[in-house]
This record gives sequence, structure tokens and C-alpha cells, in this order.
Amino acid sequence: MSEAKVTILGCGSAKPTKTTSPSGQLVELCDKSFLVDCGEGVVLTMQKLGIHTSRLYNIFISHLHGDHCFGLIGLLTTLGMLKRTQPMHIYAQPDLQKLLQPLLDYHANDRLYDIIFHPINPRKHAVIFEDRTVSVETIPLKHGVPTCGFLFKETHRVQREDGSFDYETRKRYAYCSDTQYSEKIVPIIEGVDTLYHESTFLNEHGARSKEVKHSTAAEAAKIASLAHVGKLILGHYSARVEDHSLFLKEAKPIFDNTVLAEENLVFEI
Amino acid sequence: MSEAKVTILGCGSAKPTKTTSPSGQLVELCDKSFLVDCGEGVVLTMQKLGIHTSRLYNIFISHLHGDHCFGLIGLLTTLGMLKRTQPMHIYAQPDLQKLLQPLLDYHANDRLYDIIFHPINPRKHAVIFEDRTVSVETIPLKHGVPTCGFLFKETHRVQREDGSFDYETRKRYAYCSDTQYSEKIVPIIEGVDTLYHESTFLNEHGARSKEVKHSTAAEAAKIASLAHVGKLILGHYSARVEDHSLFLKEAKPIFDNTVLAEENLVFEI
Repeated sequence: MSEAKVTILGCGSAKPTKTTSPSGQLVELCDKSFLVDCGEGVVLTMQKLGIHTSRLYNIFISHLHGDHCFGLIGLLTTLGMLKRTQPMHIYAQPDLQKLLQPLLDYHANDRLYDIIFHPINPRKHAVIFEDRTVSVETIPLKHGVPTCGFLFKETHRVQREDGSFDYETRKRYAYCSDTQYSEKIVPIIEGVDTLYHESTFLNEHGARSKEVKHSTAAEAAKIASLAHVGKLILGHYSARVEDHSLFLKEAKPIFDNTVLAEENLVFEI
Repeated sequence: MSEAKVTILGCGSAKPTKTTSPSGQLVELCDKSFLVDCGEGVVLTMQKLGIHTSRLYNIFISHLHGDHCFGLIGLLTTLGMLKRTQPMHIYAQPDLQKLLQPLLDYHANDRLYDIIFHPINPRKHAVIFEDRTVSVETIPLKHGVPTCGFLFKETHRVQREDGSFDYETRKRYAYCSDTQYSEKIVPIIEGVDTLYHESTFLNEHGARSKEVKHSTAAEAAKIASLAHVGKLILGHYSARVEDHSLFLKEAKPIFDNTVLAEENLVFEI
């Protein structure tokens, strides 16, 4: 079985910059791919990285700000041109289908595959996906619009000494973007192997961060520390911070095992 | 006055590849900027190239295939975040407004600038924009859906010997994408300084090219030759051709002054 990993397809915030595109990640667990958020350019980056979509069946959208969903229509029409026949499942708030369906009807009506929308309630912590080896739970977040993160769990079947089988959780990955500082998420993400937590601002932007309901790098690190996670990945950088190493500088004193998301990087979970 | 030039923001066809994104060009004439087509990723490339949008007031969309318009919503919301107050004019077929308005209402309702849609008829050769120094005309093309190219003309005021003023046309640039081979466009683009003509396929894909109503590099070159243009730029390359120099190889024997569009390149008009 291939290793658990996450590929950063975009790690900027709403305003694109010279070095960052809007949010998107490919999470790979148990030989399956899961797309988390799909900002503009995600399908372009996937093509540039040579990422195949044949093992991608499930897309999770954290909230409906454009930098997290404008790339969906391009991805879904591209899959149509690639003659995909396997269904695609999209987990998002109900408004997404209302916004996307007219575009799909106009631009992708000749596709050979079904798109199945699964409405989710971002305010509730719940299991929204489960198969024999992977489950996904929502993580309610605090942002300007209803938003949730996603907790991915790898589950493996283990044979007991008496010959019967049990299931054990192995790798766990939590995606938390976008959110203001919220300790309410700590019990849900307690002890995960890897946490991606948004880090839009630096300490000097504290007031702005609160106003627009985002987090600073230090706040992301504090959450990582309280939740005893293995590794923290920062991302969703504001366009006003060109030098991303400043985020690391403010996070590391609080949580040492912190790394910076940058586009095209792959992290072991 | 700055030179007349065109910046290639995207020159692939519908399916993105490792080296090409969907269509988009910035045409600069008489110190004004005009965006022609806006595929996914155009605003990202503009940011990466450091292109400022303060002189951009007019966007022209050739047709409503996704690879020519999916980047509009991202661009228009980004302009909102940049606190733009000057209106933006969009010249396109009426369906574009129907598709875009619900997205603008949902994602960009707090913007401080107006978006003014100008419906165009792609089947008719007509002047659709005119100010004191630049005019733009539609060029009816032949494609699977109603499509037109755009002819840009620089007009300069010249003082006569008797003190009165006259107007003379200087630089002319024609954008023709997407289209099958059509000699009907020749009288409209006769003698332009620079012609961008789509070149989706090679000779070996001739049958496929006709079927999907696109052109080969040789056909683009034949149009350039018949219309006595100054320079031909090829683009809108099919994902099945990795080595773009093959397009040049088939075009140059027919029209020698041919160059290849590649992303981020700037051509003098």
C-alpha cells in the first residue's frame, strides 16, 4: 500500500499572488485520492504535476468562498473530456449544487459520468464518508460563512489471535481552513498525525485577522500544541505577506514540528 | 505612447496540459489594456506576471466554451477585493450574463464597481467598441458554437497642413480563435500587422480537426498568406501535441513570419 500523503495544489488566500494560487489539496490514503477544496487553477496544477484522476472519486468543499470552489467547473468539465465514466461524489453545502448545476448543464451536459452531490451541515461534527479503509468527518470551524474542516482516518483490518478481525485507526489527517482561533476543534483533532491549519496572518495583523475571522501562524501553532498533533502544516497565506518564512518564525516557538505549505509540495501524513 | 503588444496568458485548448493553460490574452494599444478571452487561471497568470488591472476596462469573450470564460468569475471577484471602483465592460454573447450573474450575486455582491454586459452577435461583422484611439470589430468565425474573433485598430489623430485634423489607422491586431478554416474572414483581416490564428491540430489530425471545427497549423498559415498579414502567431494547441515546434514546422513553408504563442510571452503587434 502506498504511503499516506498530501499534495498542496494551492495554498494562498483569496487574492492570488506571484507564488500562490487558491486552496486545493490532494489527500492520498489507502491507495485512494480525495480532493479537498478546489480553488481556481487546481485542475491546471494537477495536470502540471501529472496527477491522474482515475482514483479520485470524492471531493470535499469546506465552504463556498470563491477561493475554495471556483476551480470545480473546470475540473468537472476536464474529467468529461477525459471520457470519465466513474461517478464523482461532491460533499459540500447545498448552495454549491444550486450554483454549479446551471454551469454543468450548459458546459458539461455531454459528460459520460454522474456527479452526485452530498449536502453536508458544516455546523455539526459528523461522519460524512466511510468505506472499508477510510472515513471522513466534518470539523465545525468559525469563519465569516458556514465552514467546516475535514478529518481523514485510515482504518485497517487486523487479525486477532483467535482468528477474528478487528479494525484499528492508523493515519489521521485534519484539514482546517478557513477559521478563526477556536479551541472547540481540539477534541476532534486530538493526536492526529498531521494537521493543516490556516495561517492567513502574522501577529502584526492580529486585529485584521479577528475582523475577517482568520488565524495567525501563532494561533495555528497553539491549536497544534493543545491537540498534541504530530506535525503542523501552515497555509492559506495572506497576499500581504510575501516572505512565508515569517509564518514559520512565529509558529515554531509555540509548536516546533511546523512546516510551510508551498504549491506542488508533497507531505507525508 | 507605449508600444502595441499582446501578452499570452494562456494558449492551450480545452484540455489543460503540463505547459498550457486555457485561452487568454492581454492586448495593449494606446496605453489601454483589453482582455481577450478568460480561461481558468488567467487572473493567476496576471498576478504572476505582475500585470496591473488599473488600465483594464474592457473584456472580450469570443465564445462560451469553458476554456474561454471559466476564469471570469475569479478575475471579477479579485478585482472586487482589490477595491476597484471603475466599471468593467464585458462584450460577449447574452448567455454569458445569464451564467455569470448568479455567481456574481453570490460571490461578489459586495464589490464597489459595476459590471456592464454588452451583448454581441458573433454572426455579424460589426464595430462593437470605439473610443478616440481604439476600435474593436467582431470577426464571424466557424466553430461548433456561435463564435467570433476580434479585430483591434489603433486610430491616431493627424494634423493636416491646413490645420484641420484627420484620423489614420496605425496598428491592427486580429484574434481568431476558435475556428475551422474559413476564407470568409480574409477580407476583414486583410493586411493586419499581427494575426493570432488558432492552430489546434497538425496535418495528421486533419479529419479530427474538421470534425470538431478547428484548424491545423497549415490552415492558419494559409489564411495568413491570403490576408497578407505582417506576422502570424499560432496558439490553442491540442493536448495531444506535446512538441509545439511541430506546428511551426508545418506553418512556416506556407507563411514564413510565423511564431509560436507560449504562456507569458509578449509579442509586439
